[in-house]
Amino acid sequence: MPGAGAERRVLGIDPGSVRTGFGIIAVEGSQTRYIASGVIQAGTGAFAERLHIIFRGLAEVIAEHAPGESAVEEVFVNRNVQSALKLGQARGAAICACASAGLAVHEYSARAVKQALVGRGGADKDQVGYMVRAILALKGAVREDAADALAVALTHVQQDRFSARLAGQR
Amino acid sequence: MPGAGAERRVLGIDPGSVRTGFGIIAVEGSQTRYIASGVIQAGTGAFAERLHIIFRGLAEVIAEHAPGESAVEEVFVNRNVQSALKLGQARGAAICACASAGLAVHEYSARAVKQALVGRGGADKDQVGYMVRAILALKGAVREDAADALAVALTHVQQDRFSARLAGQR
Repeated sequence: MPGAGAERRVLGIDPGSVRTGFGIIAVEGSQTRYIASGVIQAGTGAFAERLHIIFRGLAEVIAEHAPGESAVEEVFVNRNVQSALKLGQARGAAICACASAGLAVHEYSARAVKQALVGRGGADKDQVGYMVRAILALKGAVREDAADALAVALTHVQQDRFSARLAGQR
Repeated sequence: MPGAGAERRVLGIDPGSVRTGFGIIAVEGSQTRYIASGVIQAGTGAFAERLHIIFRGLAEVIAEHAPGESAVEEVFVNRNVQSALKLGQARGAAICACASAGLAVHEYSARAVKQALVGRGGADKDQVGYMVRAILALKGAVREDAADALAVALTHVQQDRFSARLAGQR
């Protein structure tokens, strides 16, 4: 398979202070394969403990599936500052789990994810979920947070291929 | 010394996406002693890398000074959502550094810190800095972020003593 290296694994994360979605895909040449996905429930304890659950949960996912890089959706918050603060803390916990395991952390806007998967930055969430299932040939349902996490992982893979093609053309 | 156990160390943190202040105090009975304080500069790199610098910096501080518990100021954000999001992420990184080192994380509002140190929730920041230097008998200047971190650590110690006294009266 020309241009193909060994299998790479990408961890996608959709952080949230209540539920954090994660999804892992394997990439080898032009093939993309589903590995795992799920949702970490941060529970209803003290906020610091909830952040630690996110951090530990992702550390376990990383230890189990050994991704080499990670992708997180950039958040655009149009809600109030208290929501932004909570979401920010969850995101900080998620990014630290990746960075402290040695993973590069890439960030993509929601618009970039929609553009990459559906071809249109203004696409709705259902279309993104549909494309995630189609690209990864998933049969069953995937929870929304997990689908969003897989979507950002797929976006990173596509972006990487695009950059590689551009570099090849120089 | 009646009621005194072994020396406990408390890590106070004033998280920020640019500068994160930290301060460590030792407590033995009614004695409170300054151990160390400083500011972690998160630099100007990618945001994920800045969060990792905060996380790693605090992990090093914890490894060096071995605090058994930590205290972080609860933030009240009256700025825009983007600032709240950035501050939240820094706070998430700081809390995960403590929690993943096994430290309990206590949170105090700015008002509680002012009340504890100056006796008035509406006190200004200069008074807090002055009281931190007075209580810990510090001769030199302490940077504002470090002083704020020491202030929240002192608040936790005071709160703890107060709870212990209440429990003793029952």
